[in-house]
Amino acid sequence: MSKKKIYEGKAKILYEGTEPNTIIQYFKDDATAFNNQKKGSINGKGVINNRISEFLMTQLKAIGVENHFIRTLNMREQLVKSVEIIPIEVIVRNVAAGSLAKRLGLEEGKPLDFPIVEFSYKKDELGDPLITTEHALMLGLADFEEITFIKNTARRINDFLMGLFVGIGIQLVDFKIEFGRYYADDVCEVILADEISPDSCRLWDMKTGEKMDKDRFRRDLGGVEEAYQEVAKRLGVLKNIEDVTEK
Amino acid sequence: MSKKKIYEGKAKILYEGTEPNTIIQYFKDDATAFNNQKKGSINGKGVINNRISEFLMTQLKAIGVENHFIRTLNMREQLVKSVEIIPIEVIVRNVAAGSLAKRLGLEEGKPLDFPIVEFSYKKDELGDPLITTEHALMLGLADFEEITFIKNTARRINDFLMGLFVGIGIQLVDFKIEFGRYYADDVCEVILADEISPDSCRLWDMKTGEKMDKDRFRRDLGGVEEAYQEVAKRLGVLKNIEDVTEK
Repeated sequence: MSKKKIYEGKAKILYEGTEPNTIIQYFKDDATAFNNQKKGSINGKGVINNRISEFLMTQLKAIGVENHFIRTLNMREQLVKSVEIIPIEVIVRNVAAGSLAKRLGLEEGKPLDFPIVEFSYKKDELGDPLITTEHALMLGLADFEEITFIKNTARRINDFLMGLFVGIGIQLVDFKIEFGRYYADDVCEVILADEISPDSCRLWDMKTGEKMDKDRFRRDLGGVEEAYQEVAKRLGVLKNIEDVTEK
Repeated sequence: MSKKKIYEGKAKILYEGTEPNTIIQYFKDDATAFNNQKKGSINGKGVINNRISEFLMTQLKAIGVENHFIRTLNMREQLVKSVEIIPIEVIVRNVAAGSLAKRLGLEEGKPLDFPIVEFSYKKDELGDPLITTEHALMLGLADFEEITFIKNTARRINDFLMGLFVGIGIQLVDFKIEFGRYYADDVCEVILADEISPDSCRLWDMKTGEKMDKDRFRRDLGGVEEAYQEVAKRLGVLKNIEDVTEK
């Protein structure tokens, strides 16, 4: 029985779901960087990200952060609520790194005095430019109430994830999340969507400072697969490396 | 008697003032664009901008917008309060143009649903990048109270200037202003500083749509001097073209 493909992105494929108002997220091993200029593959990444995202979404749900996750279907697929994605990449930063460090001339690794929430306009052809709240409103990407909710929720997610990662010896440098509008029973609810994984987070080992995320792929640092596996192991979602090598 | 030069910028020279806590702003004819990559000269610009800025600052003072202007000294010089410039370029936009149109893929000339206030980090070597309020706070450029004041004041200035320019058949597309901290009697007051002129505004003729500002220089449209003169004439601050050709 073949599923109907809805959309194929850089790291995931979306299929029509098995129930009304649902879709299936299939996690690929494909990896891209620098707005698609660099392409490659990270062996087993899809399996790991499927598990990590399941785990983090489930934990977030437990503290009241509503999100799209319903249940895992298999190694690479999870059933999620079908949402209308709000075209804003929400980036939360605790430490200067990546584009923030570059744009503002900050030393990479400098802890920020307080967590910063940034918005990027999700539009590949423009290179996902940084936008302010006013730009988001002006572009009609979301209304003021939604933006306030998104910012507050992003801060809650950051607090929780900071704590969770500290518990396993990892510094949460920054991460990207997306939100979507879930329509049910004539009500529209903004919920966390997409994924949370080493693809979308900067994670540094607290002892060694080693990068344990997609920057290893972006910057050709080697040991990419091992880094993803290590994060999964510390989170307790991967018992054996063999788990992820089967397709 | 030679004055002590404090700083030479792209379009102005600052000299030590004749009274305590003052400086002299000398308006040059030099023009630069694209972060100093394009350089040239606009004949008589300094004289015109000196007058336009005097006029606009005086009018703004009359509606309660405190600013650095004290009095005009001569054709190219004005005495102003000595302030510590806050390194934020405050840009107010009513119509999509320039970097906003380019970054967000908007058609130049599209009226915005509401005026937008943007901040750029005033740092040539970084190309004056767009920043959010949180970035400004994190970089320590200003505190929250100052930023709130700056944003509210920028909106008041926009309302007033929009009205003033409509009165002379000109659409105020956008403009850039700067603020500074004026220290006197142990009190620090944030006031409007720098200049307001066709160097720092986008001004379009309401009938013809013709540009009447520095974009004529940036984009090699010709008639640069005439455009500056026309703005000055409509504002009533220039009676004869001959006024500005003497040095």
